[in-house]
Amino acid sequence: MTAGVLTGGVTTPRGFRAAGVRAGIKASGDLDLALLVSDRPAAAAAMFTINRVQAAPVLVSRENLTRSGGVVRAIVINSGCANACTGDGGKRVAQEMAAETARLLECPVEQVLVASTGVIGVGLPVEKIRAGLPAALRALAADQGSTAARAIMTTDPFPKEAAARTKIGDRDVLVGGMAKGAGMIEPMMATMLAFVTTDAAVPRPLLDRALRDAVRDTFNAITVDGECSTNDMVTLLANGESGATVDEASYGTFVGALRAVCLELAISIVRGGEGATKLVTVNVTGALSPDEARRAAKAIANSPLVKTAIHGGDPNWGRLIAVAGRAGVEFELTRAAVAIGPTVLFKDGTPHDENAPRAAEYLKGKEIVVEVDLGAGRASSTVWTCDLSADYVRINADYRT
Amino acid sequence: MTAGVLTGGVTTPRGFRAAGVRAGIKASGDLDLALLVSDRPAAAAAMFTINRVQAAPVLVSRENLTRSGGVVRAIVINSGCANACTGDGGKRVAQEMAAETARLLECPVEQVLVASTGVIGVGLPVEKIRAGLPAALRALAADQGSTAARAIMTTDPFPKEAAARTKIGDRDVLVGGMAKGAGMIEPMMATMLAFVTTDAAVPRPLLDRALRDAVRDTFNAITVDGECSTNDMVTLLANGESGATVDEASYGTFVGALRAVCLELAISIVRGGEGATKLVTVNVTGALSPDEARRAAKAIANSPLVKTAIHGGDPNWGRLIAVAGRAGVEFELTRAAVAIGPTVLFKDGTPHDENAPRAAEYLKGKEIVVEVDLGAGRASSTVWTCDLSADYVRINADYRT
Repeated sequence: MTAGVLTGGVTTPRGFRAAGVRAGIKASGDLDLALLVSDRPAAAAAMFTINRVQAAPVLVSRENLTRSGGVVRAIVINSGCANACTGDGGKRVAQEMAAETARLLECPVEQVLVASTGVIGVGLPVEKIRAGLPAALRALAADQGSTAARAIMTTDPFPKEAAARTKIGDRDVLVGGMAKGAGMIEPMMATMLAFVTTDAAVPRPLLDRALRDAVRDTFNAITVDGECSTNDMVTLLANGESGATVDEASYGTFVGALRAVCLELAISIVRGGEGATKLVTVNVTGALSPDEARRAAKAIANSPLVKTAIHGGDPNWGRLIAVAGRAGVEFELTRAAVAIGPTVLFKDGTPHDENAPRAAEYLKGKEIVVEVDLGAGRASSTVWTCDLSADYVRINADYRT
Repeated sequence: MTAGVLTGGVTTPRGFRAAGVRAGIKASGDLDLALLVSDRPAAAAAMFTINRVQAAPVLVSRENLTRSGGVVRAIVINSGCANACTGDGGKRVAQEMAAETARLLECPVEQVLVASTGVIGVGLPVEKIRAGLPAALRALAADQGSTAARAIMTTDPFPKEAAARTKIGDRDVLVGGMAKGAGMIEPMMATMLAFVTTDAAVPRPLLDRALRDAVRDTFNAITVDGECSTNDMVTLLANGESGATVDEASYGTFVGALRAVCLELAISIVRGGEGATKLVTVNVTGALSPDEARRAAKAIANSPLVKTAIHGGDPNWGRLIAVAGRAGVEFELTRAAVAIGPTVLFKDGTPHDENAPRAAEYLKGKEIVVEVDLGAGRASSTVWTCDLSADYVRINADYRT
């Protein structure tokens, strides 16, 4: 995607080990407990869901990060249960997950973050976590990043990993990450769960800034279904193993690699969106401001009528115009334009429906770009989404059963 | 639904006639041209889409209503083509529809309103309208309201009609209406197309106020898919044939009957939503303000995860909490509550998932009520929606083909 992108994941940067094991939380017996450990204490930045309802692991991770002053040794993650809306009991379970991990790793409890994903409102059986953790510890290895990426999946059709290499001074710096997605994806701050690592040393203020800069046009520019979950979390750990330290001069280089990893993970989440058969890139141009461009792009990307038309290969460009018109942004019909792939279907107030057959042919592909020019200004924004299929309904009509 | 509701429709009030004919606009050969005529000039109120993109018939109807000072003799409606995003040519077609109708009825052109529904961006063949209108005129009758209601359908699975009777002074007053819906339904001002008649005499300012009062908690409280169309329109014609005149004293009585008709039509639109198998009533209580209550209820009613769970009969109450939490309104988890039908599943911060089997049993029904108490205040709101099924995807994946 960008120069320097590698095959790899969360353990590609040096000094990180991971594991994925079966703890018996998922009824299916699939992998459901992941552990990510930095050999030395790492500087950490994190972004959490902006949902008013925050799951127990979000509350506990936020507290631990504050108490440790942004130093993290490990992240313990379970799938199969979100531990959200589970009251004080749920919070105690999340605390115990961190405590047990800290005890086994012999590190301070506040240096352990906790994440969960799965059904909301069901208790997380702490004894299963406690029983599973020793096996996870034994399995920890620098080549187990892919197993960890599989252990955090819920309805995801495939694991999501990415890595990139860049140079700071004369040192190679590696960035890696894993994520899970599939449903409840319009993060607004981060994504469902994403864990990014680097072996650069990055001072805390720069680390925070880098994460926010990288997330803005990656995890915060995707949507599967317009839903923001109670458990969303993205973390970035920097352990300095490379011997390179990021400063203001090398900040741009570092953020470039970080953004490449975040973008690849974010787009993987969309590709693996629930029921997705096509990756859809929505480009909005001609907006009055970047915020209006993003708002219009999100409205289009979340429109069930647009998403079903693309699913069916129907070049129904009128729906794109209709959504742009109701998005609450400046829009000038007589200067607006719509294109599906390279084919213009509406321009300067005039339909070009004679081009619809060409657009229909293009829509048979798996990677679709649609572009709407609002005709109001010069700002633009890109948002990624997927199509809406009957499989989305099937997956979500009986998620708990 | 309310006392005084009758079987009937747009021609139930005295002095109205209607017709529905085949003009050849729909490839299927189904009814596609409707005409509604008041024997004498009627006082008219109307609400139009707030989409920035307004279809030609919306522009022309708005202009005619202004030019006539709110006096209407007839409304001509076609289905099968929205005549939206069709440029100046499209506007001339809409004007010609009004002009030809006025010529045949021998009334001023500005007393004719025009409405269209169907595919956006495709030209409306005016010669088919011109050829179809004489047949519509010949078919005009007081017992043809149901035929007109069928002629305005697109993906609607059944026609939508409603009527009510009330008493003003010693006179019986009748209110009737027809509507079409199915897709692009979150009107924000009216609904797709709804035409309401009454034989009361109602002075213009009261008529306008009555329409807005009736629409607020009926057409503006429904959603099928969160989409606001380019063609939405609701009109109210009052021809005075009953001999009763509505004044401030009888306003409440009149609005009661009007609201009953609007509510029945609005709920019919939801019942007939694209792919709908269940009618879902979303009650939000405990909100800080009526606006926040409505916003939370709309967010829940538009959530694909809530709608698919209800479709699948899955009592996944965590999704209701998660949506309330991201709706951008005040929300206090420790005082919040969720019920599906009569079954409480979450209350005061504590899950009652042990009640899930009872809720699952209830969800097998066709009429579902869900209730979320935000725990933040005393305001409430009700919104109606339908479930999201694989049929919704099928209907919309190849709408144009």
